[in-house]
Amino acid sequence: MTEGPIGPEDFQHVTQDFIFGDLSSNESLVQDLTAAGTGLRHRSRTVPAVPRADEPVVIECAVGADVSVHTAEVIYTTDGSLPDSSSTAVPMRLHATDWLELNWTYGECWRGQIPPQPEGTLVRYRIRATTIQGDTIWADPNAHSGEAGLFAYWLGDSDPPAWLREAVIYQIFVDRFATTGGASLRDGESLADFFGGTIDGVRERLAYLRELGVTCLWLSPLFPSPTHHGYDATDYVSVEPRLGTQQQLQALIEEAHALGMRVLLDFVANHCSDQHPSFRQALADPESCERAMFSFSGDTYQSFFDVGTMPKFALDRAPAMAYVLDAAGYWVRLGVDGYRLDYAMGPSHAFWAAFRSAVRTINPEAALIGEVTGSAAQLATYEGRLDGALDFLLLQALRGFVAFDLIDSDAFGRFLERHFRYFSARLVLPSFLDNHDMNRFLWAVRGDVRRLKLAALLQFMLPGPPIIYYGTEVGVTQIRDLQHPDGSRKLEESRTPMVWGPDQNADLLDFYRLLIRQRKLIRQRLNAVPVVVALEDPEVLVLGVGPGMYVAVNRSRVYKSVSLPSEALTIALSTDEGIDFDASMANLPPLSGCLLVHR
Amino acid sequence: MTEGPIGPEDFQHVTQDFIFGDLSSNESLVQDLTAAGTGLRHRSRTVPAVPRADEPVVIECAVGADVSVHTAEVIYTTDGSLPDSSSTAVPMRLHATDWLELNWTYGECWRGQIPPQPEGTLVRYRIRATTIQGDTIWADPNAHSGEAGLFAYWLGDSDPPAWLREAVIYQIFVDRFATTGGASLRDGESLADFFGGTIDGVRERLAYLRELGVTCLWLSPLFPSPTHHGYDATDYVSVEPRLGTQQQLQALIEEAHALGMRVLLDFVANHCSDQHPSFRQALADPESCERAMFSFSGDTYQSFFDVGTMPKFALDRAPAMAYVLDAAGYWVRLGVDGYRLDYAMGPSHAFWAAFRSAVRTINPEAALIGEVTGSAAQLATYEGRLDGALDFLLLQALRGFVAFDLIDSDAFGRFLERHFRYFSARLVLPSFLDNHDMNRFLWAVRGDVRRLKLAALLQFMLPGPPIIYYGTEVGVTQIRDLQHPDGSRKLEESRTPMVWGPDQNADLLDFYRLLIRQRKLIRQRLNAVPVVVALEDPEVLVLGVGPGMYVAVNRSRVYKSVSLPSEALTIALSTDEGIDFDASMANLPPLSGCLLVHR
Repeated sequence: MTEGPIGPEDFQHVTQDFIFGDLSSNESLVQDLTAAGTGLRHRSRTVPAVPRADEPVVIECAVGADVSVHTAEVIYTTDGSLPDSSSTAVPMRLHATDWLELNWTYGECWRGQIPPQPEGTLVRYRIRATTIQGDTIWADPNAHSGEAGLFAYWLGDSDPPAWLREAVIYQIFVDRFATTGGASLRDGESLADFFGGTIDGVRERLAYLRELGVTCLWLSPLFPSPTHHGYDATDYVSVEPRLGTQQQLQALIEEAHALGMRVLLDFVANHCSDQHPSFRQALADPESCERAMFSFSGDTYQSFFDVGTMPKFALDRAPAMAYVLDAAGYWVRLGVDGYRLDYAMGPSHAFWAAFRSAVRTINPEAALIGEVTGSAAQLATYEGRLDGALDFLLLQALRGFVAFDLIDSDAFGRFLERHFRYFSARLVLPSFLDNHDMNRFLWAVRGDVRRLKLAALLQFMLPGPPIIYYGTEVGVTQIRDLQHPDGSRKLEESRTPMVWGPDQNADLLDFYRLLIRQRKLIRQRLNAVPVVVALEDPEVLVLGVGPGMYVAVNRSRVYKSVSLPSEALTIALSTDEGIDFDASMANLPPLSGCLLVHR
Repeated sequence: MTEGPIGPEDFQHVTQDFIFGDLSSNESLVQDLTAAGTGLRHRSRTVPAVPRADEPVVIECAVGADVSVHTAEVIYTTDGSLPDSSSTAVPMRLHATDWLELNWTYGECWRGQIPPQPEGTLVRYRIRATTIQGDTIWADPNAHSGEAGLFAYWLGDSDPPAWLREAVIYQIFVDRFATTGGASLRDGESLADFFGGTIDGVRERLAYLRELGVTCLWLSPLFPSPTHHGYDATDYVSVEPRLGTQQQLQALIEEAHALGMRVLLDFVANHCSDQHPSFRQALADPESCERAMFSFSGDTYQSFFDVGTMPKFALDRAPAMAYVLDAAGYWVRLGVDGYRLDYAMGPSHAFWAAFRSAVRTINPEAALIGEVTGSAAQLATYEGRLDGALDFLLLQALRGFVAFDLIDSDAFGRFLERHFRYFSARLVLPSFLDNHDMNRFLWAVRGDVRRLKLAALLQFMLPGPPIIYYGTEVGVTQIRDLQHPDGSRKLEESRTPMVWGPDQNADLLDFYRLLIRQRKLIRQRLNAVPVVVALEDPEVLVLGVGPGMYVAVNRSRVYKSVSLPSEALTIALSTDEGIDFDASMANLPPLSGCLLVHR
């Protein structure tokens, strides 16, 4: 492990580059916002944002700087079919003229209204306009194929299942967690090799996980795949033999359920492996019916970030949609409690509305959590379509405050208040400190366990259900940074094997156990929006996390005293035994924090 | 006159650089928008946008990415005094949490409400907040002095006077228009010299102006000033001797009124000359009471675009405010019909509310027209505070379409429809093709009178009252471009002397006379929002400008045929005698256009 000062350079490598791509850079934001001022853009904006049964739904469409629209209409279906020119149409009318600052000209907002539909209806629609030149254009056409944008809303239960809000989630990279029978994981030449973890290995470690206190497992992709990570499946309805069998998965689920744990699978709807038989058929025979499952244009096809080995499904067309929805239903019928949805920004909102309808009709308790690495405004568009979205914005703020000293307590506290106020209760925001696509937290902080404990303390006292990336609780770190000196990025650097036995950091594990226990005790009373109580120092924060419950944090490298908001407090949990306090003051050692509760 | 092709390069020199400064460039827009996401920003946003008597007014304030506000309040007065800590306060409350895309974090919107006030009240207010650290901050503080932002609304008549909507305005640069007694204007070495035009010279030419048909004169600055342009006065209540006397001005006004013409003065509230006695006193003696009229910080002072010879008044403080408002009232009492307000974006909205209240109390018919070179959104903030704003956006589009072939008829037509729909009737938008700060239109089009006629035809058939820059109607052009080869810009290149007698382009003058006559005939029936009727070619446009009234335009260099929207049309006015048409088609020569009306 390298030593040395931590600074913004680290942060840039670790977080900004990876989480939001170029999105948080000005240049691409501006490009994005300027492009948003052109063409016909619906972007799934409805009023209300989450449509309700038996109420009309207003469909909004922005008409950009470069288009003169003569007439516009919404065409829709309510019978599960895809809308086409024979579908019901409702007219849209000019609603407002707007000034588009970045385009330095005007745009328009048009509105139409879909009449009330009964509970359970999946409404699918497209927006079509005729320009003044007489051309037909469509809202949000596919950037590659040019196909008309498909939109949908499902008038089903839009509330996330209650268990998800209560959950403590554990993310398992199956190949790296535990072998069958407890043998050591293979130590591959490279972290892109197979390490031998299995589904049975996970099952055998359920006791460990139960003792830790987790209530929900998120298993990395289990479907057959040529890669160690499995995010490129060749089959969506069987299990990768290397990892186990369907029976073994069923056994794991049953045993987990018996122990009060839920099981989420990692599901990649967006794309598959180029070894997937349907893709091979589509590639080999342009006349094959599989061709329509993908977006071909001549010899080229759309793929995940232009990685040719991961062809993108054409999910807004019936064949791919049916294939993927059938697979999603298959595993839910088998007992899976829901999905973590990889690259949820890839498929359309219309697809997710259909996905949710399909899954929830089978199991009304199933949870869908999206990986959405976008802005808060983008995240909010998933309310009513998904149950939750991984909280990358909180991750950025937490790492910025606790790991990299990039923001002070004022900025961090402000972020927390506004962040949790911004989202409605309809979108659960599971929190995390690291995952399989970024440097592990402990690596990023050069092994300073104090910072990890501090970050975990904050994570567990905030409203979102916490996720622990396997091994973080026992001090698993990395061998190298995922940003290599040659400029390449190897995400697998963070997929180091789990450690078992004496190599585990027992102190850290104890801390995590206490943390989980404590969260379960107070979960029901946690504030939906944490409140900054005192801010006497840019590196100190006292956060009101519930009635009579406070988290005090010293992010600095020196001792700090902090005034307490009440005289009747006691320490319920601390990251450092050296914290001392009297009725009105707490004295916090460097990089320490505690939970204070009313006596 | 140089020959050669016209292209975007010309346009950049002529328009983009000068009209909106850097504002229409992406970089500075982004900078501006990002800055808008910090601090406390009111920007005079009220609900309703134009407050009404006897109704509560909601005051909105944006709290930026970098501020944690604990409490906020609006402090206000209704008795004409400036709000201070002893004034009435109403609390503000958090209203919404927003995502600020360019700041990549959250902001907030706070709201407070000022109770209903009776007709005629001038409500002045400031917005004060306490941060979580206990600091006091103010909304929109002065960028230089840091003084708390001052805001105001006047519950008086917010409608522009009817005569302004009907007006045909003629802009006179007094030094360049006509000498007393009709002698030739001096031909200065440089266009920054004095040319000998006078107020009496204008009076002597009223017959010419009446015959032309104009109904309103806008006179360039008349107050004593060391410069040829007068935009830096040394005294606000007397007349520059070079131009004439107060008596002569009164005589001009009386004679103009007798001929049915209004007279607007050009008024520079923002700044004065550094030779102004008050400024000299303020500069010489930091203890003088004149010091408070300007924004000093040590030895430096705020000035117009950092031009030291033009010190900026501190108009949100009582001394400068009183001086300038008294002067404005003085000339209105003398018979002036209103003002063209130079650099209206300089003074605050609060100042303009007070200015309008002061002027309209003296003459309820007085009109105030601002020079606002900002976005449409910025322009709209002057609704209810000014009567009109010079239509720089239309100028940019007109020159872009007719002079420089930069945009096609689709973009131009779209701009027109949206532009006039965007603004309420509360803001009159006087139109113009050129003025004293940019290349004359005829120079910009390399002397091609066809383009000028085409632009004028469009200008006069659009809703805003047209302004003619002196001489444009008789073919006055320039000697040199205002962008010099050495990189300097000499705005005075466009202030060439008026031509009289045989040097006038008689054909062009006849065209302008017909144009004005025609406008007066149809003014009452012109559409508030013109409508694109047909768009068969990117260089041809048929615009519905009123019931049964169409403007057909061929912007190309070849003949174009255009289908007519009705069979019962006749040509009421055309820019080219070569236009022929039958019942269903018009055949337009290159760069020609006409007004078609129902027989």
